[in-house]
Amino acid sequence: MIDNLDLVGLAEAIAAGDISAEQATAAALSRAQNNHLNAFVRIQPEAAMEAARAADQHRAAGQPLGPLHGVPLAHKDMFYRAGQITGCGSKIRQDFRPDQTCTLLSALDAAGAIEIGQLHMAEFAMGPTGHNAHLGRCQNPWLPDAISGGSSSGSGTSVAARIVAGALGSDTGGSVRLPASFCGVVGLKPTHGRLTPAAMMPLSESLDTAGPLATSSRSVARLMSVLTGEPMESGLNLPLTGLTIGVVVEQDLGDCATETLTALDEAAAALRDLGATIIALRLPALDHYAAMAGLVWAPEAAALHLDHLRHRPQDFGPQVRNRLLHGLSMAATTYVQARRLRAADLAEVMAGPLAQCDVIALPVCRILTPLAQHADADGGPEMDQIIGGLSALTRGFSYLGLPALSTPMGYDPRGLPIGLQLVGRPRAEALLCRVGHAFERATCLIRNPLLTTAQPS
Amino acid sequence: MIDNLDLVGLAEAIAAGDISAEQATAAALSRAQNNHLNAFVRIQPEAAMEAARAADQHRAAGQPLGPLHGVPLAHKDMFYRAGQITGCGSKIRQDFRPDQTCTLLSALDAAGAIEIGQLHMAEFAMGPTGHNAHLGRCQNPWLPDAISGGSSSGSGTSVAARIVAGALGSDTGGSVRLPASFCGVVGLKPTHGRLTPAAMMPLSESLDTAGPLATSSRSVARLMSVLTGEPMESGLNLPLTGLTIGVVVEQDLGDCATETLTALDEAAAALRDLGATIIALRLPALDHYAAMAGLVWAPEAAALHLDHLRHRPQDFGPQVRNRLLHGLSMAATTYVQARRLRAADLAEVMAGPLAQCDVIALPVCRILTPLAQHADADGGPEMDQIIGGLSALTRGFSYLGLPALSTPMGYDPRGLPIGLQLVGRPRAEALLCRVGHAFERATCLIRNPLLTTAQPS
Repeated sequence: MIDNLDLVGLAEAIAAGDISAEQATAAALSRAQNNHLNAFVRIQPEAAMEAARAADQHRAAGQPLGPLHGVPLAHKDMFYRAGQITGCGSKIRQDFRPDQTCTLLSALDAAGAIEIGQLHMAEFAMGPTGHNAHLGRCQNPWLPDAISGGSSSGSGTSVAARIVAGALGSDTGGSVRLPASFCGVVGLKPTHGRLTPAAMMPLSESLDTAGPLATSSRSVARLMSVLTGEPMESGLNLPLTGLTIGVVVEQDLGDCATETLTALDEAAAALRDLGATIIALRLPALDHYAAMAGLVWAPEAAALHLDHLRHRPQDFGPQVRNRLLHGLSMAATTYVQARRLRAADLAEVMAGPLAQCDVIALPVCRILTPLAQHADADGGPEMDQIIGGLSALTRGFSYLGLPALSTPMGYDPRGLPIGLQLVGRPRAEALLCRVGHAFERATCLIRNPLLTTAQPS
Repeated sequence: MIDNLDLVGLAEAIAAGDISAEQATAAALSRAQNNHLNAFVRIQPEAAMEAARAADQHRAAGQPLGPLHGVPLAHKDMFYRAGQITGCGSKIRQDFRPDQTCTLLSALDAAGAIEIGQLHMAEFAMGPTGHNAHLGRCQNPWLPDAISGGSSSGSGTSVAARIVAGALGSDTGGSVRLPASFCGVVGLKPTHGRLTPAAMMPLSESLDTAGPLATSSRSVARLMSVLTGEPMESGLNLPLTGLTIGVVVEQDLGDCATETLTALDEAAAALRDLGATIIALRLPALDHYAAMAGLVWAPEAAALHLDHLRHRPQDFGPQVRNRLLHGLSMAATTYVQARRLRAADLAEVMAGPLAQCDVIALPVCRILTPLAQHADADGGPEMDQIIGGLSALTRGFSYLGLPALSTPMGYDPRGLPIGLQLVGRPRAEALLCRVGHAFERATCLIRNPLLTTAQPS
């Protein structure tokens, strides 16, 4: 039964006494410890079980319950907890014990959530595939040979495999949306600045944001309510009538897989059936936005790791070291211009596409989920091409700072999920969850890979 | 009589009917047209006289008067007025007609001020001396051979020579404070971000701010009230008891002129007599802050002028072109690190020096006002040394974004004024004006160079 509950369902079952926190946590721990996905870098079974028993005692004592009371979660290994190791997917920080606790973790703690462990990630959150030179690769629960997506690889995999009902990831250019898409779950990249970056590993301060993953948009809304302290769930069941959704036209999506374009058409039809007005939307500058994201990201990341590049370059994986070197050679004037352009580009999007529609709809990724053997490279033009191709449709919205939600819109001929990306105006997270929620209820495309035989659709 | 009124005095005299706006404006125009200071680049006598007559008619009709009703002003030639030439001290923009009007000019207009012309400035506001390869040099009214200071050269000179009672300048590393100091008037660099930068020439968005100059701190407070729309004058007459003023110790001021150190001692004594608690303050990182300002400033300025450097380098003066080239060769990572360090450095100053005292007191400049023949250079290490030396004590507070007021604290053996710099916490402009006002009333050091025979003090 637990397997088929989303995070909100599990929280309700615990609150109602249908499942104890201890049962839920024991089940999560058992699944975390018995799989070959390589989704976890660390598990804390004793501490988690102790917290679960305490949660059950609180409930029995009639104390008020938080909105995540007794719900087991796990997070990307980059959110600091004072005194505990936060490895950031790296060798360089493998023994790093921060002296602060991340504000977002504290918010989840205060809501009653139980952390069972820390999740696999790309080294320093740099990489869209799930590759990690130190930790090995994280597997996609739909197909072991397929990439999980990254950099929030363990977050996508562990939620898809129903190990935990929700997880924090982070997104600088697609790092929540890509694993959500490839693993067939829901992931939200909030508006830049909406979630505090306090005491989490930085990568690129202009683009970074934490973001939640879960198996439903309503669960993502629950997590966002807790993380922001603002209500995000009240409008979830409103109909989509009155909303205009702009579906990006094929010519502005570059070289997009046929199956993906078909899934986007079907998603548009489903959204129309739900009452939304669907328009064909031009977004010709998307490649420009993606290129600008690279100019902002590269020197910010390189500046963070400058001392490590100088003194212990051998301790980086080759892929990450090679990507950091791009940022070292950039002129300051190029970076200053890219940052200046950002406000003008956002103003243009707000006056153009986001004045014509409330939500922009497009795929998360141009290509179908690649196999690991085809997506792995250590450096050079091949690496740049793979990484650039995977994040071509996500990076631009990081540059613009806009919120974007990924939710499944279909399956490719191998039975692997394909992600729909819904992009909103600044601070439109609740609206994106509302559209995602309606779409998911209508399409029932979020499935459990462990209960599904992947097969041609 | 008009000659000896500060801006507030003049505004009161016009409001009371003792002087008409027409008389005040005619006098200002006459002085602007009859001098050899090279303070003006453009004068609009007809439009100014027409505005003055209209102001007198409004007063006669009993209409409500703004706080600057009928007061003639002039501003650095970089604040845009739609359709009017704004030359920015340059050849490149000599025919530039913006299509917007600067918000700050609109605020002064709405308060009843009359603009009589536009003032000399360093080319693109780059240069602390008053040098301009295209316009020629702006003179110091105390001594024609002495530099006026810059880049708000005409603002310092025209206020000191009592041509106008107030002027806008801009300050990116000392450009309001240095001409105020060398010309013996009051100049305020507000907190970064306190005054909107809308529709004024940008130089370095991280450091730029507009700032007012006048012959008294109370007049600067009046201008700030108008520019911010917030009351700045109500606390001006409060005593200084209860305030702690930290006077920076000699060892942290670098190689500072003896006369300047003596003036600072005397200023500290005067402030103590006014009731303030005086403490000796360590500020050992001031040179570091100044160096960081250079790393932030240079690429931001170079990025703004990149197209001009590529396509019409011959149209820059050599000094300005050579300074811009510094920014072209900087790595993006260096700039990113300097900007990141800024928040940490500000936090350190807030927890250290600005926790120990309410106001930091130090000289505006380490050296006595140089003669133009000694301060002019077109490029190379000599230029860097002159410019760096002049702004060594001002640039650091631009980097930190803190407000800083310059007011005279004495005279050197040639009879040239020496400036005191008062630095406050973010948004402490009103407090700085209060301290300046008390100091000026007690010391009577603000003098009219045209009524004073410069002589050894």
